Amino acid sequence: MNPDPDYSAAYVVLHTDEGMEGHGFCFTIGRGNEVCVAAIEAYAPLVEGTDLDLGDLGGFARRLLHDSQLRWLGPEKGAVHMAAAAIINAAFDLAGKIAGKPVWRLLAEMTPEQIVDLADWRYLTDALTPDRALDLLREAVPGRAARTADLLERGYPAYTTTPGWLGYTDDKLGRLAREAVADGFTQIKLKVGADLDDDVRRLRLAREAVGPDVRIAVDANQRWDVAPAIEWMEALKPFDPYWIEEPTSPDDVLGHAAIRRGVSPVKVATGEHIANRVIVKQMLQAEALDVLQIDACRVAGVTENVAILLLAAAFGVPVCPHAGGVGLCEAVQHLSMFDYVAVSGSTENRVIEYVDHLHEHFEDPVRMSRGHYSAPAAPGMSTQMKAASLAAYAHPHGEVWRS
Amino acid sequence: MNPDPDYSAAYVVLHTDEGMEGHGFCFTIGRGNEVCVAAIEAYAPLVEGTDLDLGDLGGFARRLLHDSQLRWLGPEKGAVHMAAAAIINAAFDLAGKIAGKPVWRLLAEMTPEQIVDLADWRYLTDALTPDRALDLLREAVPGRAARTADLLERGYPAYTTTPGWLGYTDDKLGRLAREAVADGFTQIKLKVGADLDDDVRRLRLAREAVGPDVRIAVDANQRWDVAPAIEWMEALKPFDPYWIEEPTSPDDVLGHAAIRRGVSPVKVATGEHIANRVIVKQMLQAEALDVLQIDACRVAGVTENVAILLLAAAFGVPVCPHAGGVGLCEAVQHLSMFDYVAVSGSTENRVIEYVDHLHEHFEDPVRMSRGHYSAPAAPGMSTQMKAASLAAYAHPHGEVWRS
Repeated sequence: MNPDPDYSAAYVVLHTDEGMEGHGFCFTIGRGNEVCVAAIEAYAPLVEGTDLDLGDLGGFARRLLHDSQLRWLGPEKGAVHMAAAAIINAAFDLAGKIAGKPVWRLLAEMTPEQIVDLADWRYLTDALTPDRALDLLREAVPGRAARTADLLERGYPAYTTTPGWLGYTDDKLGRLAREAVADGFTQIKLKVGADLDDDVRRLRLAREAVGPDVRIAVDANQRWDVAPAIEWMEALKPFDPYWIEEPTSPDDVLGHAAIRRGVSPVKVATGEHIANRVIVKQMLQAEALDVLQIDACRVAGVTENVAILLLAAAFGVPVCPHAGGVGLCEAVQHLSMFDYVAVSGSTENRVIEYVDHLHEHFEDPVRMSRGHYSAPAAPGMSTQMKAASLAAYAHPHGEVWRS
Repeated sequence: MNPDPDYSAAYVVLHTDEGMEGHGFCFTIGRGNEVCVAAIEAYAPLVEGTDLDLGDLGGFARRLLHDSQLRWLGPEKGAVHMAAAAIINAAFDLAGKIAGKPVWRLLAEMTPEQIVDLADWRYLTDALTPDRALDLLREAVPGRAARTADLLERGYPAYTTTPGWLGYTDDKLGRLAREAVADGFTQIKLKVGADLDDDVRRLRLAREAVGPDVRIAVDANQRWDVAPAIEWMEALKPFDPYWIEEPTSPDDVLGHAAIRRGVSPVKVATGEHIANRVIVKQMLQAEALDVLQIDACRVAGVTENVAILLLAAAFGVPVCPHAGGVGLCEAVQHLSMFDYVAVSGSTENRVIEYVDHLHEHFEDPVRMSRGHYSAPAAPGMSTQMKAASLAAYAHPHGEVWRS
């Protein structure tokens, strides 16, 4: 489905009068990045020159998202929503830097009332009310300190997609799968959906490489309709796939629910392309998925993801963020760590995706240890790219583009 | 929800080597129009300089929509999808002009196979297969001639939103409602959702003005969550509202289904902000609405609307297009007329919205007669604006902007 990704990002820097900076971005795969840039520029008049109240970041996000003229281009989906994500995440990066805290900690040290106020509750109350969310958050308060200590000591579990890209030779797949296990990962992921015979061979090979105890997820990147998804997965079941990711359209709540019934006991995972919290709500209401894969930069950044984490906790569905892309590993780790400390209170069956590329461009790249993300300590959201990378890759005048 | 619309459009002209032109646009309400322009420009390399095969307009549309890098910004939603609508509708305007036919007739004279080939069937087959769609279309073939004659004689039924905007005085509301009935309309529509006491008073007044036999639809423009929608409508029931339009988020299939159960016998209508055919499919599967309101320029133009009309016919749900905006009346009439002649074969409980503004800017404006749209006779999709209007309103150098 994504044959020629040219990893790109529409990048935002917020500047304060005091010289502080907040960095955020949304991730694209090439052409169209300029559409997100245009959307960010359309929001600029709502941001530039305004007072940013760090105690009301929810209000800041709602002012952007409720702008009626820009909302018309969604509502709350597509380019304008990705643009809002870039700006809202930049505001949280800034808030973390001003507070001197990584964003996971900034969030996890808020009161339940402050956390609930970050979310936009419109369209959610038939599934979760602010009052019920407050109850959930209050129940988690007593355990925050112990979980923070545990997080700082152990990190947050990860899985790796490195072995599983389409187009790798069988030898390379087997070698990378064995390396992943040696590196401490307990789950890997393979792309599937191009050719069934190939998938059967690759999955057999991966299973042989990792043994029976390592989970192997498979990812179809939205390739199938409902019936083909169920048929294809039936052929892969002998190799015990753990979850099937994005079997069909990310908009198709009822389709995912039908697929989930059809592929059991294989789990269904989706979320990287879910447009907003309203689709997430329905995925949960319809029991359409076993694993929710949030994205840091497709829904409206930290604030909408707070609403989504609360929904997932209320429905008892584990969140395993989508990562990779440009800087998504850096961004999503803050969301999962906040979730562990202050929302769901658990890492059981929860893993953050890990892909080993582009980290060298970030000021505070993710740090992996024995298959876990180490908790970031630097202030901010880890979303700031190095000045040299920004200069070299800036389109169209950076040296990479000129050469 | 839309307090300050500044009616705008991102406008496309396709030129052939022979000097023919196809015109299309997507409608916005002001800021953000430039985001749609950027998205249209992002598609331009896929269009400019290519051969447009008028016998394969479905293939043309799929080439745009399946472009993996631009699809990433949706998929199939938001600014990139609105941009695709503008381009695809321009291609149909061009095809109609080359064929010397209005687009409703161009479509209605296609074979069932040609019509089915216009649609993108991905993600639809759990609800409707191309074979079943072919059956539907073939059943309609014998009646096409009689229905075309009927359409040319009577036109297509309409309803009017003119009396019902928020902010009108009670006197103006009553006067416009009476005028609408005198003009032959059998349905009017009122905006609701700002203030319940006001809505009760306005709906009582409108009911007194039009009498018991004229349908009064009400439109909440996405304002409510599920429970408030049901409560609000309970208070309006004494005045026999015909449908409640957009009670909540256009993404909320399950929410609409719950509201529909809660407000019966009032009907539920939605669609102007539905992102694509996948959401439409689910609305039908979940029995979430009684009336489907297609938009010409939010889903991907004629081709995706053909898929949606086929879905609606298969589920037996009447289509009543959203119109108004900029040129939507001009565009959607072709879709409803095609639906009547070649798809559903019925105008029962079907009405096209009519709003009496901006028609003066179009080369071939809609013509109303006794509450009906007269069938367009001019070649094309009626989407071409007058050259003088395009010049005067072009942003930022047109004379209207300069003054």
